[in-house]
Amino acid sequence: MTGNIVTERAARLATQETSKDGITMHFQARYALHLLVAGAAALIAVAAAEAEEGVWTFENLPSKVLQTKYGFATPSTSLTALRLSAVRFGGASAAFVSSDGLLLTNHHVALSCVQKLSTAGEDLVRNGFFARTLAAERPCPATEIKHLDSTQDVTATVRSAVRSTDSAVANAERNAAIAVLEKECKQKTGFRCEVVTLYRGGAYHLYRYRVWTDVRLVFAPESRVAFFGGDADNFVYPRFDLDFALARVYEDGKPVKSPHYLRWATTGVKEGDLVFAAGHPYSTDRLVTVSQLEFDRDTRYPLMIASAKRQIQALQEFGARSPEAVRRAAERLFGTENWVKAMRGEYKALQDPSLRAAKAKDESLLRKSFVATPDRVDPWAAIEGATRKEGDQIRAAWVVGYGYGTLFDTAGTIVELANESTLSEAERLAAYRPSAIPRLMLRVAADEPIYKDLEIARLTSYWQEALDILGNDDPFVKRVLGDKTPLDAATAVIDGTRMNELQERKRMLDGGLAGIAASTDPLIMLARDVYPLRRRLAKLHEVEVETPTLRAGDELERMRYELFGTDAYPDATGSLRLSYGIVRGYDADGILTPWQTNFWGLLGRSAAFGAQPPFDLPPRWSERQRNLDLSTPLNFVSTLDIIGGNSGSPVVNRNGELVGLVFDGNLEGLGGRFVFRLYGRQGPRHRGR
Amino acid sequence: MTGNIVTERAARLATQETSKDGITMHFQARYALHLLVAGAAALIAVAAAEAEEGVWTFENLPSKVLQTKYGFATPSTSLTALRLSAVRFGGASAAFVSSDGLLLTNHHVALSCVQKLSTAGEDLVRNGFFARTLAAERPCPATEIKHLDSTQDVTATVRSAVRSTDSAVANAERNAAIAVLEKECKQKTGFRCEVVTLYRGGAYHLYRYRVWTDVRLVFAPESRVAFFGGDADNFVYPRFDLDFALARVYEDGKPVKSPHYLRWATTGVKEGDLVFAAGHPYSTDRLVTVSQLEFDRDTRYPLMIASAKRQIQALQEFGARSPEAVRRAAERLFGTENWVKAMRGEYKALQDPSLRAAKAKDESLLRKSFVATPDRVDPWAAIEGATRKEGDQIRAAWVVGYGYGTLFDTAGTIVELANESTLSEAERLAAYRPSAIPRLMLRVAADEPIYKDLEIARLTSYWQEALDILGNDDPFVKRVLGDKTPLDAATAVIDGTRMNELQERKRMLDGGLAGIAASTDPLIMLARDVYPLRRRLAKLHEVEVETPTLRAGDELERMRYELFGTDAYPDATGSLRLSYGIVRGYDADGILTPWQTNFWGLLGRSAAFGAQPPFDLPPRWSERQRNLDLSTPLNFVSTLDIIGGNSGSPVVNRNGELVGLVFDGNLEGLGGRFVFRLYGRQGPRHRGR
Repeated sequence: MTGNIVTERAARLATQETSKDGITMHFQARYALHLLVAGAAALIAVAAAEAEEGVWTFENLPSKVLQTKYGFATPSTSLTALRLSAVRFGGASAAFVSSDGLLLTNHHVALSCVQKLSTAGEDLVRNGFFARTLAAERPCPATEIKHLDSTQDVTATVRSAVRSTDSAVANAERNAAIAVLEKECKQKTGFRCEVVTLYRGGAYHLYRYRVWTDVRLVFAPESRVAFFGGDADNFVYPRFDLDFALARVYEDGKPVKSPHYLRWATTGVKEGDLVFAAGHPYSTDRLVTVSQLEFDRDTRYPLMIASAKRQIQALQEFGARSPEAVRRAAERLFGTENWVKAMRGEYKALQDPSLRAAKAKDESLLRKSFVATPDRVDPWAAIEGATRKEGDQIRAAWVVGYGYGTLFDTAGTIVELANESTLSEAERLAAYRPSAIPRLMLRVAADEPIYKDLEIARLTSYWQEALDILGNDDPFVKRVLGDKTPLDAATAVIDGTRMNELQERKRMLDGGLAGIAASTDPLIMLARDVYPLRRRLAKLHEVEVETPTLRAGDELERMRYELFGTDAYPDATGSLRLSYGIVRGYDADGILTPWQTNFWGLLGRSAAFGAQPPFDLPPRWSERQRNLDLSTPLNFVSTLDIIGGNSGSPVVNRNGELVGLVFDGNLEGLGGRFVFRLYGRQGPRHRGR
Repeated sequence: MTGNIVTERAARLATQETSKDGITMHFQARYALHLLVAGAAALIAVAAAEAEEGVWTFENLPSKVLQTKYGFATPSTSLTALRLSAVRFGGASAAFVSSDGLLLTNHHVALSCVQKLSTAGEDLVRNGFFARTLAAERPCPATEIKHLDSTQDVTATVRSAVRSTDSAVANAERNAAIAVLEKECKQKTGFRCEVVTLYRGGAYHLYRYRVWTDVRLVFAPESRVAFFGGDADNFVYPRFDLDFALARVYEDGKPVKSPHYLRWATTGVKEGDLVFAAGHPYSTDRLVTVSQLEFDRDTRYPLMIASAKRQIQALQEFGARSPEAVRRAAERLFGTENWVKAMRGEYKALQDPSLRAAKAKDESLLRKSFVATPDRVDPWAAIEGATRKEGDQIRAAWVVGYGYGTLFDTAGTIVELANESTLSEAERLAAYRPSAIPRLMLRVAADEPIYKDLEIARLTSYWQEALDILGNDDPFVKRVLGDKTPLDAATAVIDGTRMNELQERKRMLDGGLAGIAASTDPLIMLARDVYPLRRRLAKLHEVEVETPTLRAGDELERMRYELFGTDAYPDATGSLRLSYGIVRGYDADGILTPWQTNFWGLLGRSAAFGAQPPFDLPPRWSERQRNLDLSTPLNFVSTLDIIGGNSGSPVVNRNGELVGLVFDGNLEGLGGRFVFRLYGRQGPRHRGR
């Protein structure tokens, strides 16, 4: 994940008539970026009472520690303002920074929009973008902004609906209860309503969101400055990136009124400051058991990493064709490289014996409080069983599908939407819950460029992977390849499909089951045949893995509650969370790392690599650097607990004033998926001579 | 260790009449410093045939690999020039860079001189020094320069002299043979002659040195620039230090003629360049066995690290008294911190299971070629036995003595010199071989400031350590403390001694055994009584540990020769060695690290730490930075194989032109004491986006 901040002056850029060439110069004011380090302290899962960090829900703040350790009293108007200003931007985070709908987020969060607005003739990724007037702001295709209005604890309702001991039935009962809650809420309030599963099934909260889909790009810097250092510098600190962008939310064709927004701090942060971030961390596994950890280490991560590397190779080979091919593959390549780098850090953490030992210690503590009774399943045994089942399924489940993010994936979504919509809510695949459908529709109907050459290259890679993993006797492989090579098979369906045309997709979406059954589009025909294979595996996973794991997690969570109560925080689930931390440098295994970086460092690192990509800068950066105070802070680092989805999270000081923007973590923090630990010794070492 | 380089322009500074304030400005030319990373490749010990690195003697260059891999032919006039220009500067390295005796070395190598020339009123360490005329060059107390004139293989002579199977007798026979060789050589040639033990006793070479003791300081930068980042940045890269100094060798009161000297390269190095360094690495343990490795890991390093930390604490507590106390303790504190940081890296390497596994693999390979016969001792068993003996001795051997580098140490040397000189050469302690005596005399008779308050603080710490380790019933502890506390005992002898006066030391040195026996100086009286205790332990070590280890090493070496011949290089021993490597950046576990740094980076790191010590710079650096081209390269990194003692080694390109100066290694390279491995992946990773 990733984020950054700009000052008051920088923010004005988007609303004032400032010459575009002047933009980067303005960043000599105060802090421009915020780089986060996952940090501090022991295990969260069981040692939560001691832990100082966490991804807390706003309903259950770590009030005691904030008061005793930092003298920070809750409830707090600062935190309320932070909560009300924060939004979810696609899968990541952002915040209102003006009363007329202006949003601050990361460049890499807005990148999907910037990329879609770019053409071969007008490369906004490379050259940046600045709308001098409201009229010049450009609509982002398929972008959704969600603002949390209110929440409600519905744990009792969901639990009481689950009566069966058969896990398939229990799962259906739970899904049905959740669907009813969401539907009733929507009818009553008009909001998008979603039941959020917390504490791995320990609690269920109903979240009510205001949702906007008219979002327009206001400002994006040149990608060379936004992602200075590229993949090489991702998850790296010290870091030198201007990873921010501005967008605006519209309603009925006008900028939305946003009464709650963050004010810019007039002074920057300094080392030792307490800071808060509000964002949407989408997934942690801090409550996993030892058997799950071992499964991740021995099976899941090796599979995922190999797959990601295969995809990177395919994208690089595609890019080798031409500069235009590089541009077309850029966003996907960046995303995949980012993903593999994160996994590498997590995989390394998984192999750390001390992490496993800490988990084992947790478990033995919890086991002491477990008393087996006839109606109480041993949760560890249940999870171990479910994990074994997952081991049987995972390889097929990984490759049998539509190829993540491809045009085939879009075709698969059209086919599944038509089919799943005919089922009762309890029977549906979880991904097709009514509350999830609008976003899926939006994605299918997005008006964005689709490049058939890139689609062929990507499908070829996915299908080669399936062939390698499942062999050519597998029904899925047989259906997608027939007697062709992966390349020939992919070329045939992509050449023949019209799903790249927006009108055709809309027509197919509107035609429902009958239209799909009648379709002769080769991609739809293929998706139609793959759907039952995919559905069988998804249901198998839901019933044999997910449901027993949720039930066992429920049980474990109850035990944890008995031990820690609300001193614990739930695993991240993509819902709004608060993190708190301290701004400070650290000792990276012998290398003393400062809490801030500056423009000298940016120019120094660029020059040290001969200003070669990805360490090159737009020309005006070297031409005009003499006009900048190069000691101006650029990025800073803190002990905030963040993970993927926190990108774009606003960072505020004690007074709730904006001081930064989350834009990345460091490699050492990637183990934060499983545990949260501060890397290295805390604070600087002896500095005297 | 540590080193760096300056360009032609910078070098002229010392010989031309340049305004002092202009000095730092001149460094905008080319490369100023060279930072070395121990790098590349497998195990050296056994896998030497594959290894590309090593600390090679000039008699046995890695000609085959230089030719085949780098197209570099030997013999080479470049390497001959390098060899003839290189000198030993105290315990470290330097090189002639002009025909009139000008030497280039590290600031931290010359620091001892700079410190001794400083007073409370004139702090050359802090403010730097520049002699505008020859007359202004200031004599360095107690500094010795050794220039290797020629060498001779005397293995056969030494081996044939050792006839006994009893290790004490064998040891005496070897010492006697070496003493005869050295004496004959000195009489014949007038040179300082030293027999160097190579391949841990596998070979003996006679080295003939020209020795100078009149060395004068010419130029030293401000310590803040020379050691920017202080201990925090030691063994760290990327790095930003101007760690160089200039001195001049005098003979008969005039600059010595130095026909062999290095020319400055007119262009700097670039990534991928082949470079060479000539220096005096003083110690590696790459041929150690598994049992020795384990002993180091479990016993030696924990003991040494605890001791070093104790010394650092004592020096810090001393420094807390006043700014003057900080100044007095500075050199010792820096040296000790440097040492403990190096040990920490080595200790970490020792704990790496893959290092132990690689060693074990080596051993099993060698064991296959070993056939036991009645007159052939099993070398591994012998070393294991010797190591066990060392385990019995090491704690006492560590603390029973005079306190390294203290005034008591000087008194001990005086007492030992008088006593050992009366013994036959075979009976003497190895440290008192005739060839070693001049340097000892020089140290005792050095006119350098001695601070009694610092001496008391240091002895107190040493004696507290002895008390803690040996208990108060130990004869050594009883003698040094009597019924006093360590502080009271140290205060009594230091208050009472006159050994801090140069004239008194010289008188004592001249008085011989009789003078010592008659002395009532409390420090001499104490040294007199400690001497037999110390000597007993030293001899025990020589006979029970050193000699059997040497014999076994001899045996192992023979086996290695059978397997690898001269493809192998001997462990470092402080004698002149050649290293070769490639200039290149590296991937530090996910962080892409450039091959060079620049002045932007220096200013950036300083500002990032708020310009607080040790990251502050002399004022003119910030005042005048606008006049510098801040992209000018400052430090660079290569895969040269270096270790302590290489500090100040000149680095030359293929043409033998000076391009850098060794001044440090990185933390990852510290395992190079035991094996030589390149850290991280080689070269930069994918750079495209």
